[in-house]
Amino acid sequence: MLKKNYKEVEEQEAVLADGRKVDGIYIRWLIDENLGARNFAMRRIEVKPGLNVPLHNHAEDHEIYILSGTGKFYNDKGEVEIASQGDFVYIPPNEKHGIDNLDNDNLIFLCLIPYLK
Amino acid sequence: MLKKNYKEVEEQEAVLADGRKVDGIYIRWLIDENLGARNFAMRRIEVKPGLNVPLHNHAEDHEIYILSGTGKFYNDKGEVEIASQGDFVYIPPNEKHGIDNLDNDNLIFLCLIPYLK
Repeated sequence: MLKKNYKEVEEQEAVLADGRKVDGIYIRWLIDENLGARNFAMRRIEVKPGLNVPLHNHAEDHEIYILSGTGKFYNDKGEVEIASQGDFVYIPPNEKHGIDNLDNDNLIFLCLIPYLK
Repeated sequence: MLKKNYKEVEEQEAVLADGRKVDGIYIRWLIDENLGARNFAMRRIEVKPGLNVPLHNHAEDHEIYILSGTGKFYNDKGEVEIASQGDFVYIPPNEKHGIDNLDNDNLIFLCLIPYLK
């Protein structure tokens, strides 16, 4: 068993699966292979006000839970969802998705992804 | 893409992997196979004041993030961790674990488990 606070984990600038760096997006890998997790990883992501995660896709699905702030989650099929604290979002494998911070505060959420085998 | 609030998901009385029902523990399966998730499931668990999840184990590991309240997480090797909002806990596969609510409020956390293949 291991316990930590998210603040004990180094914050990194986010890099998309396709290699693009995105400004104003910070990620902490809370639980991952370094802790022995082999099935999926828990990340905590902060999006600064006025900033966004541009449309991108990858084979991993996302299980997202909003901790604070308000975000617009959208895909390339015209689907748009506004999500805030207590909301969760499921993004299927390979679906193109983007996220805009709609608020004046950080948008903070957990985003979990599988280790595909 | 799918978005919901946790309150839209039915709350169920928790049943341990070994079939035991436990009083005062409520679980919502937020993201699971019913939504098409095939790799892992996101559950939101509430433990009422004074109540606990007794020691049990199973092949699935747990990735836990505390949303509110304060809990004691322990195993059968004498390890004890006190966790509250912003803390996360990793419980490896097969490790015996239990959880006590230490507070006068509900202990609320996300607990994710893999679908083992």
